[in-house]
Amino acid sequence: MKLCVLALLLLLGLVNAQDRTCNLDKAVKSSINQYCQNTPLDCTYVRSQGSESTCPSGYAPTGCSCGMGCGSWDIKEKSRCHCQCDKMDWTAAVCCRNKCQ
Amino acid sequence: MKLCVLALLLLLGLVNAQDRTCNLDKAVKSSINQYCQNTPLDCTYVRSQGSESTCPSGYAPTGCSCGMGCGSWDIKEKSRCHCQCDKMDWTAAVCCRNKCQ
Amino acid sequence: MKLCVLALLLLLGLVNAQDRTCNLDKAVKSSINQYCQNTPLDCTYVRSQGSESTCPSGYAPTGCSCGMGCGSWDIKEKSRCHCQCDKMDWTAAVCCRNKCQ
Repeated sequence: MKLCVLALLLLLGLVNAQDRTCNLDKAVKSSINQYCQNTPLDCTYVRSQGSESTCPSGYAPTGCSCGMGCGSWDIKEKSRCHCQCDKMDWTAAVCCRNKCQ
Repeated sequence: MKLCVLALLLLLGLVNAQDRTCNLDKAVKSSINQYCQNTPLDCTYVRSQGSESTCPSGYAPTGCSCGMGCGSWDIKEKSRCHCQCDKMDWTAAVCCRNKCQ
Repeated sequence: MKLCVLALLLLLGLVNAQDRTCNLDKAVKSSINQYCQNTPLDCTYVRSQGSESTCPSGYAPTGCSCGMGCGSWDIKEKSRCHCQCDKMDWTAAVCCRNKCQ
């Protein structure tokens, strides 16, 4: 009799454990939605003198702005904004990274 | 004899539980890869009259565009594009946020 | 006596399992922080001839650059940079996506 009760408890424990395993994926999805989803990017605007502006480590440039109304630029080594017009007085970079809540 | 079988079942259960714990980190990594990794950003283009354009709540500006071919701009309070050339007719912002699948 | 020991072991196992369930949310948060948080975006600079430049599949344009110093542009269908000045010689897009470590 006592053995039967023990065996039942044991089976109950295994069934519970099985359920927990099945719910893991749901829990992870829900946590990701809670902490990561639909959060704004973490971006900063960095302005420097001359024709280049460098993003801080861990940030990537997503857009560049140039002095004298110039709109021609490129990105060097995934880290620096480079304005192409002559005699640039200043260059700015929008630098972004992922950011969960 | 019966006690031995019970004890073995019990040990088996504990070993299984241990394995599940060890696999948790792997499962989380895999789920993150599945839902969050390599997804495009969720971006929208917002154009307004005048020299400023504001991103919707929860979005951050990653780049700005200006009327009259002007390429000089800055970002105010991490939320608004501001075009710097005189007498701006329109200003636009690219506004982005994280988005998992 | 042996039954008591077995029962105690069983209870110990169930209590452990309960703790593991409670720690799941913490573990998921910690893994997300480890793999996703504060990572740079994965961005690439794509330049094309003419007045449009298209991002690769899975990437979204976050900023555009135009030839002839032009700073007026818009984004078409969340995938293409379009420079608005006349007779554009080249158009470039900064194309980004989420990227966990």
